[in-house]
Amino acid sequence: MNRRNLSMLVDFYQFSMAQGYFKNGLQDKIVYFDMFFRSIPGDGGYVIVAGLEQFINYIKNLHFTEEDIQLLRQKGISDEGFLDYLRNFRFRGDIYAMPEGTVAFPQEPLVTVRAPIIDAQLIETMLLLTLNHQSLIATKASRVVMAAQHRAVMEFGARRAQGADAAVYGARAAYIGGVAGTSTVLAEKMFGVPSLGTMAHSWVQLAGSEYDAFCTYARQNPENCVLLVDTYDTLLSGVPNAIKVFNDILLPLGHRPKGIRLDSGDLAYLSKSARKMLDEAGFDDCKIIASNGLSETVILSLIQQDAKIDIFGVGENLITSRSAPILGGVYKLAAIEEDGQILPRIKISNDPAKITNPSFKKTVRFYDRTSEKTIADLIMLKEEEVTEEKYPISHPQYRWRTKVLKNFTTKELQVPIFKKGTLVYDPPSLEEIRKYAATEVASLPEEICRLVNPHIYLVDLSQKLREMKRELLKSEKIY
Amino acid sequence: MNRRNLSMLVDFYQFSMAQGYFKNGLQDKIVYFDMFFRSIPGDGGYVIVAGLEQFINYIKNLHFTEEDIQLLRQKGISDEGFLDYLRNFRFRGDIYAMPEGTVAFPQEPLVTVRAPIIDAQLIETMLLLTLNHQSLIATKASRVVMAAQHRAVMEFGARRAQGADAAVYGARAAYIGGVAGTSTVLAEKMFGVPSLGTMAHSWVQLAGSEYDAFCTYARQNPENCVLLVDTYDTLLSGVPNAIKVFNDILLPLGHRPKGIRLDSGDLAYLSKSARKMLDEAGFDDCKIIASNGLSETVILSLIQQDAKIDIFGVGENLITSRSAPILGGVYKLAAIEEDGQILPRIKISNDPAKITNPSFKKTVRFYDRTSEKTIADLIMLKEEEVTEEKYPISHPQYRWRTKVLKNFTTKELQVPIFKKGTLVYDPPSLEEIRKYAATEVASLPEEICRLVNPHIYLVDLSQKLREMKRELLKSEKIY
Repeated sequence: MNRRNLSMLVDFYQFSMAQGYFKNGLQDKIVYFDMFFRSIPGDGGYVIVAGLEQFINYIKNLHFTEEDIQLLRQKGISDEGFLDYLRNFRFRGDIYAMPEGTVAFPQEPLVTVRAPIIDAQLIETMLLLTLNHQSLIATKASRVVMAAQHRAVMEFGARRAQGADAAVYGARAAYIGGVAGTSTVLAEKMFGVPSLGTMAHSWVQLAGSEYDAFCTYARQNPENCVLLVDTYDTLLSGVPNAIKVFNDILLPLGHRPKGIRLDSGDLAYLSKSARKMLDEAGFDDCKIIASNGLSETVILSLIQQDAKIDIFGVGENLITSRSAPILGGVYKLAAIEEDGQILPRIKISNDPAKITNPSFKKTVRFYDRTSEKTIADLIMLKEEEVTEEKYPISHPQYRWRTKVLKNFTTKELQVPIFKKGTLVYDPPSLEEIRKYAATEVASLPEEICRLVNPHIYLVDLSQKLREMKRELLKSEKIY
Repeated sequence: MNRRNLSMLVDFYQFSMAQGYFKNGLQDKIVYFDMFFRSIPGDGGYVIVAGLEQFINYIKNLHFTEEDIQLLRQKGISDEGFLDYLRNFRFRGDIYAMPEGTVAFPQEPLVTVRAPIIDAQLIETMLLLTLNHQSLIATKASRVVMAAQHRAVMEFGARRAQGADAAVYGARAAYIGGVAGTSTVLAEKMFGVPSLGTMAHSWVQLAGSEYDAFCTYARQNPENCVLLVDTYDTLLSGVPNAIKVFNDILLPLGHRPKGIRLDSGDLAYLSKSARKMLDEAGFDDCKIIASNGLSETVILSLIQQDAKIDIFGVGENLITSRSAPILGGVYKLAAIEEDGQILPRIKISNDPAKITNPSFKKTVRFYDRTSEKTIADLIMLKEEEVTEEKYPISHPQYRWRTKVLKNFTTKELQVPIFKKGTLVYDPPSLEEIRKYAATEVASLPEEICRLVNPHIYLVDLSQKLREMKRELLKSEKIY
């Protein structure tokens, strides 16, 4: 799967421009691009970064075959010098990125690319789609997991995912965001996301009776017996049959039941009734798993109704981030190099929110030294350092709301990934990423994690960067 | 890309059940499953079926490697007889499906599988995700194209797609739904979807000036010169510079301009002003291409405002079907075979809309012999034929609304795809599929194509099927 060649997953204009740069002799021109998003999907207060490992694999494998060259030639990309250049193409630039699992906020560069212009442009489409997609799903998963308040969440959405990649990379991203596992076996094969599942309604329908179906399943899976109880009537047949089979088959075999699963109906009412029946039958250790149209909103409502659900199975609403199915990451020019000097560039716009932050930058996060909670982030020039013990920082929208930070520690959010085309980063394991994401979310003030109307996290620009931006806006020679 | 092995893209419970069937000696048990959806995404009146070709490729390639077997064994699927069975597994069943491009309605089987139970279950996840995804995007594209009222629509969404598959298969599906092309080159390489594009803002930013950027581009692409005019100020600099370059560079080279592109701002106002400027400069043949947050709703509004846009570039809202990002296709048991006899099965539910239609079925579409427009669809038992010259048909929800069809022709919607595991279908080319989809949509009454509040298309059950369903509901032995 990883050997798939996605090098031609490029917007056509990149080739068109790349040929132009080549013809102008600009193939060694160094430029800086930032990938960042402007707003958090849905009602969220933060985004969890994911997808970097797949982007790294793409960069490592990036090359153009004769077939690719042939196609481009047919399409009018016909400068033989340029095609030859593509034939020998390998990514030659530097890449800095936030490690997967990092919590990120609007305007912060998730990825910064310093590379020859052609290299920087050709990777844009895959960089954006990979990080946009996985960060979107990791973020959504984090919200669903937060709603479940320490109950487990399983990812069940493959059949409604937007293609096979959306199913397997979505399961990976959801795991980073905190789900306990997935139904999709390929996500376990490719990434080690724990996969599991029990039976479908067809298993029950195909047996002579519900009782028979449960008996057979319990005999075959005594150690891991979870029974689907809603094929006919959950409370009149499903739960009573399950209890009967636990007593008739499972206990004599020396095993306790693992759970029952509800996949339809009024999950609050059914789970409370089923819980009572199971408890009265002596199976208070038998978990109740529920699925069917769940989302963070429905889970919050179920918990508020005191539903007796131990594990939530979340399908289409998670795997597509249905309520907000897009993270709108963009990739913008920030600087060029001339004679080894970094010359900042800005993209102006009628919409002030779309004006970019110029130059080669980094983002530093401030943590309270006592609580270890995050306080604010600062986007600054790469060469700047926070040496002050007190640092004044302003609200991103309301500049007059300023507070002076003190008693803090700081952390730079991006790390080097590629240097001159060579991978200098040792990607952590998926388990490490997942743990890191949990630590990151735990470091946030609870007002940022709120599922509805969260606080806006403080992301400020350093004074130097702000002044540079102001100067550029003033002086920008337009036409 | 097609050689990718997706055989393990399976929900884990399928393996768990398959092992159970094997242990019970049911591996040759023949069953019938239908794939259908219960409702049309968003406000739509119809769905365009897409994704069959990829599903066929998946079936042809379906096999389990030693590595797969090893993983399953570790996960407790450890019956060596069953693992051996998987080792030699090849799909052995029959598959009937609606050809890609077919217009479909709720409850109609898009795909019907008659196969040994294990075969039928193992393919469920990929069948659903492939057809759900591509049909969703083809349908969304059809709506966007309809809104554009004979103006061209381009698919520009790769960077916001939910993974690489969503980008390339989404571009394929969008092409089936009627877009003229895509920005994604890999979609051209894999499927022949025409890809195109011009320049990004960075091209303009990197040049000395907007005028210089346009000059270089025009010199390098005289035959296909489309200039992006909104990097600085569309009307004050972009369009005047474009006109200047058309006159200074393009005309002397003997070429006419192809277009200008607007990617921000008030597209209605800007396009009208730009059109006037271009016309006055003698470039009334120069097209105006617009993008930025477009959807069927925005396009309708732009046209209603008399915006002068010739080509719409639609990105994230199309590639994710943002307004309704899920087609909820399901896969349900319809019958089993015993001693060569088809025994119908039904799935009951507290929600009447979720009660399934039993037995081995087909769907027949009625066309008015004079207008050649569709009138209604009829789901019936496979062995039934429409021999009557007059056929009474009822509204799917309001049964008392009956009309008698006459002067009609009929067409069966599914065709055989696999027979006993052998492909018996010659998949049409993408161009043929796209044309077929256009014919299908053209055959619909305009009330069904309406973008808001469409008529509900008549889909009835044959009297025999309805009676069978009623009998099964009455007699369904539950527990």
